[in-house]
Order: sequence, then C-alpha cells, then structure tokens
Amino acid sequence: MNRLFHVPLSPFCRKVRLVLAEKRIEVELVEERYWEQDPDFLRRNPAAKVPVLKMDGKMMAESSAICEYLEEMYPDPSLMPKDIDGRYEVRRLVSWFDDKFHHEVTSKLLYERVNKKVMGKGYPDSTNVKSGAKAIKYHLDYMAWLLDHRRWLAGDTMTLADFAAASHLSSLDYIRDVDWNRSEVVKDWYAKIKSRPAFRSILADQIPGFPQPPHYSDLDF
Amino acid sequence: MNRLFHVPLSPFCRKVRLVLAEKRIEVELVEERYWEQDPDFLRRNPAAKVPVLKMDGKMMAESSAICEYLEEMYPDPSLMPKDIDGRYEVRRLVSWFDDKFHHEVTSKLLYERVNKKVMGKGYPDSTNVKSGAKAIKYHLDYMAWLLDHRRWLAGDTMTLADFAAASHLSSLDYIRDVDWNRSEVVKDWYAKIKSRPAFRSILADQIPGFPQPPHYSDLDF
Repeated sequence: MNRLFHVPLSPFCRKVRLVLAEKRIEVELVEERYWEQDPDFLRRNPAAKVPVLKMDGKMMAESSAICEYLEEMYPDPSLMPKDIDGRYEVRRLVSWFDDKFHHEVTSKLLYERVNKKVMGKGYPDSTNVKSGAKAIKYHLDYMAWLLDHRRWLAGDTMTLADFAAASHLSSLDYIRDVDWNRSEVVKDWYAKIKSRPAFRSILADQIPGFPQPPHYSDLDF
Repeated sequence: MNRLFHVPLSPFCRKVRLVLAEKRIEVELVEERYWEQDPDFLRRNPAAKVPVLKMDGKMMAESSAICEYLEEMYPDPSLMPKDIDGRYEVRRLVSWFDDKFHHEVTSKLLYERVNKKVMGKGYPDSTNVKSGAKAIKYHLDYMAWLLDHRRWLAGDTMTLADFAAASHLSSLDYIRDVDWNRSEVVKDWYAKIKSRPAFRSILADQIPGFPQPPHYSDLDF
C-alpha cells in the first residue's frame, strides 16, 4: 500500500495529496510530527521534512520532484501542458507559490498562527502576521490578473500550478486568512477547483485546537 | 541577443549560467542590482529577483523552471537522465540544494558576509554565520555519501543536480567557506566539474570589495 507521511495543513503535502487524488492513486495518509525528529522518520527522509511518499517500495521526498514523478509515471489525467512554453509557465508558477508566496504569506500567517502553537514554540509574532496579511492582497491581485487572461492559472487547462496555488490558499482559508471578496475571478477559480473530487480529503481535514470554519468546506462559500 | 539578468555570486544565477554554457547557448550577462527595485526590472519580472533570462523575445524567471525549459528546448548535451526514476532523483537533489542547502548554509554564510554589505544592510550576524559553518559539514558529508555510490551526485551522468550543488559551493568557495579537505570524493567531484569549459565564466567573476582568493580559479586547488 502506498503511504504519504504528511501534516494536514502543510501546503506542500496538500499539493501531493491533490495530485495523487486527481490521478486516482490510492494512498494511506500517515500524520508525521516531523519536528519531533523521530529516528524512524529521519531514516525515511534525511531532509527531515514532509511530504514523504512511500510508493512501489521507494521513499520519495521534495514535493515538486514527487509531483513531476507522478505526472511522468501516471500521465492520465495530465496536469502538465504538452508544449515546452506551457510547461515552463506551469513550473514558473509552482515556484512562485512554493517559494515567493510561501515566504511572503504562508510562513507569515500559517506558521505564526498554527505551527508555532502545535510545535510549542510560543505566540504569533504580530509583525510577521501583519506582513503576511498585507502581502496576500498583492498575490490575490496577481492571480486575478492572470485569471483575467486565462481559464486556469497557467493557461487553458488545469495544471500543477493550480494545485500549488490551491494548496496554499486552502490552508490559509482554514484559518480564515483569505478574503474571497477581493476578486471575483479568484473566487470563481477556487470554487471550481474546490468542487473537484480530488479536493474532498482536504476539505475533511480537522486540526485539533483549530476548529474548521463553516465556510471552509462549503462549495458555495 | 539572449540576455541573462543576474548577480555574479547568486547560486541560482550561476546554475542557469552553467546550463547555458554547457549547452553552448550564447548569452549577454547583465548585472542587476535587483534589491534597488528599478522599475524597468520590476516590469521584466514581477517576482523582483534574479535570474531573469530574455530569450527569443520571452522574459523568463525562476531558475528551476528556466533550467527545465532549456533542457527541453536544447536537449543536447542532456543534463537529465532518460528514465523517470533518474529524473526524480535529479529533481530531488536540485530541491535539496536550492531549498535545504540554501536555507541552512548559503543564506547563513553568503548572505550574511556578502549580500548584507553590498545591499548596505549592516554587519554579519555571528549566530547565523556559526550555524551555516556547522551545517555545511553535514551537507558535505551527505554529498560524500552519495558520491561513494555514484560517479555524479544523481547517478552515472552529470546532471542539473551537479550544477545546482556546484553553484552553491562555488559561491561559498569564493568567500573561503568550503573546507575541501573534509572529503576526498567531494573534492574530486568539484575538480571534475570545475575543469569543464562551462565553468570558465564563473571562475572569472570578480566582486568589488571581495577579492577573489587564489585557490578559487585554480583547477588544481
């Protein structure tokens, strides 16, 4: 049986969960409190972080490498365009969200509000929270600009770029940090992706100490 | 003419320079002081960072997306294995260096010692420098472990993974932060990659205020 070692609100784990679900690859989810540095887990992954996917006897780490592997190994349904320019644009946007958005927004909001509490590292730093709350506006505007020209973030088809973006936004939505009224096109895009069967497991997540807000799993939010 | 907007010691820019040179794609290097937020540069790249590659009338950002694009568009000589497992391993290691190594080592040494001075952001934080100096040992040991089993970092052929690692190490070598005596196999690997024609432009870099150490460009270091 395939196994994904994960943390429910980690956007990198969510991206892999979405790709697995979209490609209908069954996997058992195993929560891994990686910050406790369990020796068994460190043996599985010397990078000491999640996600780690155990598949066909192999242990795999690094969400982007895993997603490209799954796309090449299970190409149907495809989450990458056929043309080289299109694939470049998908990879550029995956990096945009996993690097820039993560640094400017996710790490400033989710990590301050949730990870610190769960890991016993104290209270949120209000300077970081303010900076994240300011930066997400600019990112939502950038997404709106892209979606004014395109059906999905990287072009006419749904790709890994949409899953990367939706992973970060869904985690932030769980802690009520996304203002869906800021842009109609972004809200429509999220409603489309949220209603896919692949999203169901993510909408069912429940984090002890952080009750799920009612709109989070509502498809008509 | 193709143009690469870059900063000489940035490992992400160096990775793209190495790939371009290895594939014999001519490019004009333009130094870009991205932290000064020149409006022309921000128009070229909303992410406001380097590298940015101008090629065939397109502006491209994000080093990993650029490298995959160059590999697909100019597949000869190839820097990716043909098999899916091999490509996964290359991408895992590229992420290892650009994410984990960058976070634990490069940002703690190069950014503290060089970027802060160049950007006028004050003096190095000694806690960070100590933490980076400690972490690089573990990373060199990990590379030695890989190279005990393989000719190159990701397998039997030279790939993007070697260029990612060599980009970080060469930048740190410029500021004398790599102990080449720690591992014979890592030193041999670096001697091999350093002697490639693609490496010449990187070995010729001169940073004002930071004189190049004599061993840096010596192929028999």
